[in-house]
Amino acid sequence: MATVFRATASLFSPQQQNLKLIHSSSSRRSVCCRRRRFGIRLRAMAAQSAIVEEEEKPLVRNLAFPIMVNGCTGKMGKAVIEAATSAGLQLVPVSFSSEEDAGQVVQLGGKDIHVHGPSGREDILASVFHENPDLIVVDYTVPSAVNDNAELYSKVGVPFVMGTTGGDRERLYKTVEDSKIYAVISPQMGKQVVAFLAAMEIMAEQFPGAFSGYSLEVMESHQASKLDTSGTAKAVISCFQKLGVSFDIDQVQLIRDPKLQLEMVGVPEEHLAGHAFHMYHLTSPDKTVSFEFQHNVCGRSIYAEGTVDAAIFLASKVRFEGRQENLQHDRRLARRQHAMMRSSIVLVPHGVNPEELECLNWSHCKSNIEALVDEIL
Amino acid sequence: MATVFRATASLFSPQQQNLKLIHSSSSRRSVCCRRRRFGIRLRAMAAQSAIVEEEEKPLVRNLAFPIMVNGCTGKMGKAVIEAATSAGLQLVPVSFSSEEDAGQVVQLGGKDIHVHGPSGREDILASVFHENPDLIVVDYTVPSAVNDNAELYSKVGVPFVMGTTGGDRERLYKTVEDSKIYAVISPQMGKQVVAFLAAMEIMAEQFPGAFSGYSLEVMESHQASKLDTSGTAKAVISCFQKLGVSFDIDQVQLIRDPKLQLEMVGVPEEHLAGHAFHMYHLTSPDKTVSFEFQHNVCGRSIYAEGTVDAAIFLASKVRFEGRQENLQHDRRLARRQHAMMRSSIVLVPHGVNPEELECLNWSHCKSNIEALVDEIL
Repeated sequence: MATVFRATASLFSPQQQNLKLIHSSSSRRSVCCRRRRFGIRLRAMAAQSAIVEEEEKPLVRNLAFPIMVNGCTGKMGKAVIEAATSAGLQLVPVSFSSEEDAGQVVQLGGKDIHVHGPSGREDILASVFHENPDLIVVDYTVPSAVNDNAELYSKVGVPFVMGTTGGDRERLYKTVEDSKIYAVISPQMGKQVVAFLAAMEIMAEQFPGAFSGYSLEVMESHQASKLDTSGTAKAVISCFQKLGVSFDIDQVQLIRDPKLQLEMVGVPEEHLAGHAFHMYHLTSPDKTVSFEFQHNVCGRSIYAEGTVDAAIFLASKVRFEGRQENLQHDRRLARRQHAMMRSSIVLVPHGVNPEELECLNWSHCKSNIEALVDEIL
Repeated sequence: MATVFRATASLFSPQQQNLKLIHSSSSRRSVCCRRRRFGIRLRAMAAQSAIVEEEEKPLVRNLAFPIMVNGCTGKMGKAVIEAATSAGLQLVPVSFSSEEDAGQVVQLGGKDIHVHGPSGREDILASVFHENPDLIVVDYTVPSAVNDNAELYSKVGVPFVMGTTGGDRERLYKTVEDSKIYAVISPQMGKQVVAFLAAMEIMAEQFPGAFSGYSLEVMESHQASKLDTSGTAKAVISCFQKLGVSFDIDQVQLIRDPKLQLEMVGVPEEHLAGHAFHMYHLTSPDKTVSFEFQHNVCGRSIYAEGTVDAAIFLASKVRFEGRQENLQHDRRLARRQHAMMRSSIVLVPHGVNPEELECLNWSHCKSNIEALVDEIL
């Protein structure tokens, strides 16, 4: 039995595979700041409650678990390595990539990373896992590798974060559900964007029709190479539709012209090649009321940091798991883990019927539990 | 036994009494459009489900219940009368107001309304209620009248919508809770603003710390006569604080200068004397990510329409109540009512333990039910 933390299919359509293309290189400045931010976050986590502090302190203090980043030659792989080393994680100097990259040694995160192609992976991963029993794998490879990779991680028994989009998602979920491992699967690793999406979804669920008659304008700006409409925009629009707004996806204003992005949207010049700006504007029928929501991302640091958060969650989960003695114990732990981790994750401890977990404040009502588990990271 | 639908104390502070000052007269255009909007909304409600359609059609068709608007000489009272008559409700030609206004006959909603001062109210109300057993009262009077009025409505047994802010709120809630009537009590009658606030509150509850390290800027613009900070802004800021943002209320940028409102904020000139614009801007520590939320209200039509929605809800509630036969029946009705009304209201049918109502999708978890009942409208 395993637990898979995945984004809901309704929120992230297959088109959102393209989300991984939206990232551009992050600036030197953001790297400097990231170290400080992680410090703040971890302190905040440690301070959350006396119980958490008492039991979780060792985890917080000893976060330096080993992490293996597959797809390390890609932009997201590199960004995750940067964020992971900034957070103090131990980078394993082995990475899986395509046949073409096989045999390369790349310098990343202060280490020489040996890149392996498709052959002999199972033995290599088993060996790395044997040497690093606390290993967490992060996958930012290519859509065509998603299912094979997930099957490999599941077979060897390594918990993983799947940041790669595409592939056969249902098969992916089934692979993890049938295995004995934990995984975080999401095509949107920006934790704050996920929180915003979840809030919109909840508002739509609880107040259907509240914005009936309102008109909606949606503008999204991405780098010129992105041809289709943002999957995140589609997910938010579907919430507005449930809120009673009549809107067709074709009405989204796609901004792909760098001149407009600079002058009208306000994208910083250095991020023209990689950004994801979204604006939703609601107007009441009599035009006296308007609401506006924006989420604007430059570069990929938000996704890299969200991925590292997911890896930290998995590492904590696995450590608790190791201490698990019985169901009752597991349930108590689940409460504490949830208290500590709920900022980024939804937790269903294995062996526990989600309906029994009254402690989890995301468990709206029985019928919604499954959807919510799927929905929030 | 009675049910009170009130806004949570945490969301709406006493300072928000001033919210009632933000309204200005609505334009002719908005009145024309309102009729159309109501048509849309009611059709949408009727179409929500086969079960609802079957049983609720008579309610939807026969919405013309009598409504008495107290404080009809005030701006909000007038706006509610306008919205109520546009929605096809039957305006009762009697209204309670201050001693100074007593004896006046004012023409509103196509009727001559007789204004009564404080004396003889109980007999007058009892007589109006006797002639109009489906009566719903709306109160937009003054803070000093809130408690006396609520006690009068409760004593006579008339369901009411309390849009007047101020007074002793705890005493107000207790009055209604101790009585056998239903009431909707909220210092914020803008249904869409309430939905937005509830979504923010839920996001803060479910993702505490998700925006740790983010910096926040808040700007709010109201007519120059409003001296203090918007209560709605304070409520939203408290959500951001739970989300991990460090922010002090003193940091809110209050815009009261009409020149700035016109040129910087973009307030339409005709609404300088009555508007409520709010902007919240979040920036990630490395400045690569930003979120922005705005809710901008001109005039008072949103509040008047929300008030009429609340009155319609109460009227439906009372009719269902009349048909109630037993607990099981009540629970079934509760589900249908909820399906029909959840866009604007939270429902706890009397005699039913909220914990048993698994059908209500807002009932997050046992510990949250009370807070949510308080929170949404």
